[in-house]
Amino acid sequence: MSKEITSRAQDYSQWYNDLVIKGELADYSAVRGCMVIKPYGFALWENMRDVLDKMFKDTGHVNAYFPLFVPKSLFEAEEKNAEGFAKECAVVTHYRLKTDPDNKGKLIVDPEAKLEEELVVRPTSEAIIWNTYKTWIQSYRDLPILVNQWANVVRWEMRTRLFLRTAEFLWQEGHTAHATKEEALEESEKMLHVYADFVENYMALPVIKGVKTASERFAGAEDTYCIEALMQDGKALQAGTSHFLGQNFAKAFEVKFSDKENKLDYVWATSWGVSTRLIGALIMAHSDDEGLILPPKIAPLQVVIVPIYKGIEQKASIDKKVNDIITALKAKNIRVKYDDTENSRPGWKFAEYEKKGVPVRLAIGARDLENNVIEVARRDTKEKGSYSLDNITETIENLLTEIHQNMFKKAMTFRDEHITKVDTWDEFVKTLDEKTGFISAHWDGTAETEDKIKELTKATIRCIPLNNIQESGNCVLTGNPSTQRVLFARAY
Amino acid sequence: MSKEITSRAQDYSQWYNDLVIKGELADYSAVRGCMVIKPYGFALWENMRDVLDKMFKDTGHVNAYFPLFVPKSLFEAEEKNAEGFAKECAVVTHYRLKTDPDNKGKLIVDPEAKLEEELVVRPTSEAIIWNTYKTWIQSYRDLPILVNQWANVVRWEMRTRLFLRTAEFLWQEGHTAHATKEEALEESEKMLHVYADFVENYMALPVIKGVKTASERFAGAEDTYCIEALMQDGKALQAGTSHFLGQNFAKAFEVKFSDKENKLDYVWATSWGVSTRLIGALIMAHSDDEGLILPPKIAPLQVVIVPIYKGIEQKASIDKKVNDIITALKAKNIRVKYDDTENSRPGWKFAEYEKKGVPVRLAIGARDLENNVIEVARRDTKEKGSYSLDNITETIENLLTEIHQNMFKKAMTFRDEHITKVDTWDEFVKTLDEKTGFISAHWDGTAETEDKIKELTKATIRCIPLNNIQESGNCVLTGNPSTQRVLFARAY
Ligand SMILES: [Zn+2]
Ligand SMILES: [Zn+2]
Repeated sequence: MSKEITSRAQDYSQWYNDLVIKGELADYSAVRGCMVIKPYGFALWENMRDVLDKMFKDTGHVNAYFPLFVPKSLFEAEEKNAEGFAKECAVVTHYRLKTDPDNKGKLIVDPEAKLEEELVVRPTSEAIIWNTYKTWIQSYRDLPILVNQWANVVRWEMRTRLFLRTAEFLWQEGHTAHATKEEALEESEKMLHVYADFVENYMALPVIKGVKTASERFAGAEDTYCIEALMQDGKALQAGTSHFLGQNFAKAFEVKFSDKENKLDYVWATSWGVSTRLIGALIMAHSDDEGLILPPKIAPLQVVIVPIYKGIEQKASIDKKVNDIITALKAKNIRVKYDDTENSRPGWKFAEYEKKGVPVRLAIGARDLENNVIEVARRDTKEKGSYSLDNITETIENLLTEIHQNMFKKAMTFRDEHITKVDTWDEFVKTLDEKTGFISAHWDGTAETEDKIKELTKATIRCIPLNNIQESGNCVLTGNPSTQRVLFARAY
Repeated sequence: MSKEITSRAQDYSQWYNDLVIKGELADYSAVRGCMVIKPYGFALWENMRDVLDKMFKDTGHVNAYFPLFVPKSLFEAEEKNAEGFAKECAVVTHYRLKTDPDNKGKLIVDPEAKLEEELVVRPTSEAIIWNTYKTWIQSYRDLPILVNQWANVVRWEMRTRLFLRTAEFLWQEGHTAHATKEEALEESEKMLHVYADFVENYMALPVIKGVKTASERFAGAEDTYCIEALMQDGKALQAGTSHFLGQNFAKAFEVKFSDKENKLDYVWATSWGVSTRLIGALIMAHSDDEGLILPPKIAPLQVVIVPIYKGIEQKASIDKKVNDIITALKAKNIRVKYDDTENSRPGWKFAEYEKKGVPVRLAIGARDLENNVIEVARRDTKEKGSYSLDNITETIENLLTEIHQNMFKKAMTFRDEHITKVDTWDEFVKTLDEKTGFISAHWDGTAETEDKIKELTKATIRCIPLNNIQESGNCVLTGNPSTQRVLFARAY
């Protein structure tokens, strides 16, 4: 058995790393800040991607693929976007290596193969895509364009953490083009709801939908909608964003369309994305000190079966029964594995699958077989019980549903207990430090106050919730008049 | 309607470009040598990817993801591989841009953000992956590793062509690790057969399986297996490769395992890949002067239905019938679209879907409805006929199968007619220039002769077919003794 997992109480951040690495989701690589997503972690991502992809297609979107590189002159065209990402751009300057004349067997960058114009490795693709849309859009008949791209992007982060913040990550980025402001706004809200639907109903993680303040907006956006989730250490995590880009990119790239009256206008835009960061969110929201707890609907493996036997004969009769069970489960599209490898003992296997967060573990021995029962253990509550083999498929189907619901409820209860209304600055600081979680407080609406609060406490305004209650009050820091509470938290 | 497509006779190469661009598969981008894969082209790639992905999983492989960047010191570790790719590497040298002090609103590469070690954008991932496998492999129990990755790669080509040769392309690369040479060899042959199966049974394109000569091998491989297809202009196209890498990468990255007797040995490797280049192959093999002809099994759209009507009433009754047809076709997983847009006439639509290569087009008018029939047109032969609406689903299912078979047979006949046995140098040159296609000729087995032939004719040895007939003869160029014929061709 691998070394134990650090407990949350002992070192939350080390606990998280242990889960990722010992749960075999991902590992560090030889490239600073870049991770290797291991097969188990990638299978999780594939399940998430497939669900999201279907949701995007069901809402009328199609996939396409745009270049990895953005020429510098395009990158800088939308000024705010460029400014926002310039500090973290990996830049390709040369297109050839050559053998090092001074060092046999080594290579150097060929100084004669310098690019005339440097290429930025995409940190996000608005620039290259809007430069392309220019050639796709002439009239209102070409609109809307509802395109999504699954891709890798690079943002040169100084401090990286597996899944949560890596120099390279995988994501999807939707980029849509519309004839009217209303339609673009509607699209950006619609995709926020798609994200919330996914995170809540597949990742079992409740989210708060809201809109960012001006300071927290995506660089180049008019409005950034977001979903915010709460982690077990009381820190918030932005799980997805959807941006209303106004006409900013259309203006930067001169993308106009003629409307039904033949009048020219700039095109309206949205973009929206979620990334492998979501994996970090689900790990931190659900798991415990024994290991990962993966949401059943996207878990790479939903059920594992471990045989407990002495001798070949017992094994043979268990195998026979297990094969029937597996056939029945697979017929219901349940992802199941029979672990009858001989080089490790059942106890070791139990711990291993616990660590890897498999939602349901079955164990079956000769005695069970006689009694026509099987031991069923659920990962989330660690409850165990003996169940009849007669309707085991139904038992497991129901259990997977129940586990999802229980995980969601648990996360929801925790989240709700950690939204605290606060009306004084002392309370604000104390709640943030001691209780943690979201703080619902009045804010005077100025960027200065927002900055000051961040400087003093490291808490940021996570969002102004959608359909926020309007109530008059006084800013928690300045005492200036305020019309609504907003949600503050320390965040990942 | 868009401008016409250049005919093959007039300009084969322009014909190909017209198909790609006017068929809306892909387009050039602002980045030299990089393409934009448009939604229609990407849907085709998604279908190909999904079939291949299932084939890989059915043969025991799992997916993972490794970094985009390869540090130069890792890249150069396997010397032959490094040498083979050094001349076409995009290199990241800096990780930040900053505002240009001399030019407001512009950005420059920040000279203070120079990387200590340059990063190569992966042209292939053996180096980064084998450097990772080192940490995954200790004992024979850790083997085999059967991993595949779907990714983008970059090879800085000087002359590019959409799909066929682009600086960035999408591909999959399998990278497997084995305890024995036999097992690795078996794996590389197995994956060659998987590729051949896919290209023949899904792309309707016959291939010749063979092995490359030493000069044509993948850089760093001990043996390169390949599948070769023939295009309509008589040039060959390498459609997929599978490499037996021996212990070369294990030695370069010091990857050893202890066997059952606790003896240390280097690990054996394979790698194998196919790319978006396959799209180029299927375009050039099947299409005609009217446009694309897409193989039914992977076509984004298999059936399009066009209504022909006068007035709202006719339209309404056609709509009703078409909805039934669509429901029935979708129940059989047939990808169907009803094009009842009003801004273009039926004739225009017919030409449009012909250009886009949709295998089956249905047209239905008021008279058809009365007679309980529908017009069915197949794209491959352009045959049209009137069919009963009663069993239209079955008719279409059968037709899609027949179209696949016909496309395969047609390509096979063309290919077989263009394999010419040749025994003299004059014949060789004449056949290559006039008849084109594959030439089956004796070769003395030396790299010098191979090079000389390439120099004189631009023909290369495409492969030594698997299970090649052994017969004594004389080299077509030198007259030296030879034990077998090999296949020469000019190639993409
Ligand atoms: Zn608490
Ligand atoms: Zn011919």
